[in-house]
Amino acid sequence: MDEFSFIDSIRPSAYLQPSLIKGVSDDAAVFRQPSEDIVTAVDTMVEDVHFSRETMQPYHIGYRALAANLSDLAAMGSTPAFYLVSLVVPSDWTQEELGEVYRGMRSLASEYHMDLIGGDTVSGKQLCVSITVFGYVVKDKARYRSAAQSGDIVFATGTLGDARAGLECILNGVNDPYLIQRHRTPDPRINFAKRLSSFSRVALNDVSDGIANEANEIAEASKVELHLNFEQIPYTSQISELFPSRYEDWVLSGGEDFELIGTVSEKEWPHIVEVAKQANTPVVEIGRVKESGQNGAVYLYKEGKRSILNKSGYTHLQEERD
Amino acid sequence: MDEFSFIDSIRPSAYLQPSLIKGVSDDAAVFRQPSEDIVTAVDTMVEDVHFSRETMQPYHIGYRALAANLSDLAAMGSTPAFYLVSLVVPSDWTQEELGEVYRGMRSLASEYHMDLIGGDTVSGKQLCVSITVFGYVVKDKARYRSAAQSGDIVFATGTLGDARAGLECILNGVNDPYLIQRHRTPDPRINFAKRLSSFSRVALNDVSDGIANEANEIAEASKVELHLNFEQIPYTSQISELFPSRYEDWVLSGGEDFELIGTVSEKEWPHIVEVAKQANTPVVEIGRVKESGQNGAVYLYKEGKRSILNKSGYTHLQEERD
Repeated sequence: MDEFSFIDSIRPSAYLQPSLIKGVSDDAAVFRQPSEDIVTAVDTMVEDVHFSRETMQPYHIGYRALAANLSDLAAMGSTPAFYLVSLVVPSDWTQEELGEVYRGMRSLASEYHMDLIGGDTVSGKQLCVSITVFGYVVKDKARYRSAAQSGDIVFATGTLGDARAGLECILNGVNDPYLIQRHRTPDPRINFAKRLSSFSRVALNDVSDGIANEANEIAEASKVELHLNFEQIPYTSQISELFPSRYEDWVLSGGEDFELIGTVSEKEWPHIVEVAKQANTPVVEIGRVKESGQNGAVYLYKEGKRSILNKSGYTHLQEERD
Repeated sequence: MDEFSFIDSIRPSAYLQPSLIKGVSDDAAVFRQPSEDIVTAVDTMVEDVHFSRETMQPYHIGYRALAANLSDLAAMGSTPAFYLVSLVVPSDWTQEELGEVYRGMRSLASEYHMDLIGGDTVSGKQLCVSITVFGYVVKDKARYRSAAQSGDIVFATGTLGDARAGLECILNGVNDPYLIQRHRTPDPRINFAKRLSSFSRVALNDVSDGIANEANEIAEASKVELHLNFEQIPYTSQISELFPSRYEDWVLSGGEDFELIGTVSEKEWPHIVEVAKQANTPVVEIGRVKESGQNGAVYLYKEGKRSILNKSGYTHLQEERD
């Protein structure tokens, strides 16, 4: 593969972001943002570790890799602006297939007016898609995991467990277009997240590794207890019908749904509901925040019993005295 | 490897950049820079493609990977600020060795007060080190390849061909500490580059793929001819003595010296010499810029004969009528 001609083929013909000064044509890209804070993150997906060509087309690989990164921007309450792409490409990938990976990224990027502003393409044994994203957020309104406070309502967007169930559908030839779409081309909650700058305080995290993990991250960072009710955690009826013995695990720790979990004061909760409606994003209360004596913990209530929910989604019943 | 405990082990205990708002502890990092332009680039190095454990210690791998990225920031005339690291790690790499990769990066980063502000560590078949860097530059003073103009002096910093010769020394057991250091722990020309904001116009490119390639990039982007004199291109006497039949190729296209090639008006050339002295950076004139009828080209003069120098360093003699 000729790196130079390939770069030419994926170079944007026009840019959308007014803050961009120099795009893909020099040693680096240049932008300017005097009025907002800049948010940045990197996320890498590796073939046969994070995705397989048996279950994803090259287009989906690009789409989902960028979706995972946009979900990090959403989790900060920011609006996407730019992305950089680093590809490690094995010799059995054709230039056409790589073009499809970029087409998948472009498809999602254009929805949010994001510009591709640089990258790197090198040879290797295994396809690795590493994306760095940049977003903007109103000054001092980035949304952190550490912002939860006792008394807050815990909320979640969308439905959980879909992406894992969608993978299972593909693997077993179950034709459920909605679940399969949730695995291959998930839509991160940007439209909801970017509306959160009007709040005085919101704790926020994206559900990339499962809500069990993300709830624990909020609990740890904020040094609080999260008390979640399994009955309130949102999931589709499809997954409980199709996979009755496994859906509960997937709801708690299936991961890659790219939904959001957050906490907000009771006073501002109605405003969250309103903002979610504007963004066309389903949002529900799933529990409450309580004070923690120590380092934070997550409790799950189900059928009247209370368990400790750890990061990997494993629960164990608590004695009453706890 | 436990990703979470490893991330804890490499998380900075303090940050140096005053513009940083949130470092390694959430879904993304946050910074604010109202007064300067932001420069960003990504560069990826893959084991057995860009480096080998036979010739580099894990420390050197980290050091050189960051050096390659800093060289891109230098090529834009910017001052380094932050970096994000994405590692793909095979199972035969120990946590201790990975710690050494990070120590190599930190060693160079601390020289320029850079903060590590995020990253990603995933499993894979082959070590891939992908680094995204951020730098700042005075507004509208980023230095582009496209800025060369007819009449400019072409200059180069340092000496060329050293990194390639250093690799050969390691492979053949030749103990030349200077050349070996130039291969393993090259020092990008940040101190020189960041002083260029006082110039009205400078074209700049870093010598990552060999000066033949970089000179052509300037010629193409600026639509000019670069006329270089081989006798003026700087190289050490060591490489011509140790490798008499190969050093000429390496000077032109050895690559990874992370020096700079640039062009500046005759009027401002004395100021370049002065700034280079302040930055303790050797700089010499290596040729002149002339008008081009078409898309730009690079000519090399050697022993009174003129050749066309193409991107890969290959030269062919020109007839007099050209």
